[in-house]
Amino acid sequence: MGIDPGSRITGYGIIDLDGPRARHVASGCIQTASDRPAPERLKTIFEAVAALIETYHPTEAAVEQVFMHRNPDSAIKLGQARGAALCAVVMAGLPVSEYAARAIKQAVVGNGAADKLQVQHMVKLLLDLSEAPPTDAADALAAAICHGHTRQTRQRLGAAAALAGRRR
Amino acid sequence: MGIDPGSRITGYGIIDLDGPRARHVASGCIQTASDRPAPERLKTIFEAVAALIETYHPTEAAVEQVFMHRNPDSAIKLGQARGAALCAVVMAGLPVSEYAARAIKQAVVGNGAADKLQVQHMVKLLLDLSEAPPTDAADALAAAICHGHTRQTRQRLGAAAALAGRRR
Repeated sequence: MGIDPGSRITGYGIIDLDGPRARHVASGCIQTASDRPAPERLKTIFEAVAALIETYHPTEAAVEQVFMHRNPDSAIKLGQARGAALCAVVMAGLPVSEYAARAIKQAVVGNGAADKLQVQHMVKLLLDLSEAPPTDAADALAAAICHGHTRQTRQRLGAAAALAGRRR
Repeated sequence: MGIDPGSRITGYGIIDLDGPRARHVASGCIQTASDRPAPERLKTIFEAVAALIETYHPTEAAVEQVFMHRNPDSAIKLGQARGAALCAVVMAGLPVSEYAARAIKQAVVGNGAADKLQVQHMVKLLLDLSEAPPTDAADALAAAICHGHTRQTRQRLGAAAALAGRRR
């Protein structure tokens, strides 16, 4: 499950990595009412992420790393939304992996400096979707795809190490 | 229950406002291990706040409002900690009130520009503590005291309005 938290819109994307190719399971956006107080909006994010986990039973989660926001005014708000989404994930017992934005773009587009449109386009192609998902959902799916690549590489390395161990 | 969320230390303070005078129930600090990944630290905050609510059954929560942080590097981290603490509070069904730092200092010290030492000192006096609580716990208790004042004023205004209604 990839998550792209935001104070107004939190994107999510769930993919199945068991087959030879990543398969799209579900994706979309969690919207919070901008006229409601922060605690209520955080509750909406927490509950929605918890409900998605209960529905689709993802086993691992991936989010984009954020160190510093371009807009300092909204950094607190973004952090709060991330805190709510991450809490729902860790309270459900899922391990969370964080990836730099560059690493996610590199994994999905093959270019760490790709723009949002390219990410949307490649997510559509890689998951064989009939149309490109909205940007927040696409970013969440991209984080999930990036996690899939990393996981596969790790498994191959693990298998190679085990093989080397047996040969020794 | 007052909470002063932070990425390293989250202060908490629980006071009883039922009597004629605010009474200290519990206060302290939730520490997170700075060498652990963010999701794990958020889980620590969420679980500790949830456990405090389960133990002491507070009925309302108060936090200091934060719009923008003096240090943009840590704004995301602070936001995440706030998100975790606030989620634990709202998921337990407690209403949360946010107060500006100035309003909290005004309520506790009588001066909106008071410094941390003055807040610690006045919290010690107002709650009849044998020593001043550590700064994060003192800030949390101060938020709770500020909430108590506001609540009392609101109740008095409500009573006055009801009385005026009966007289009409």
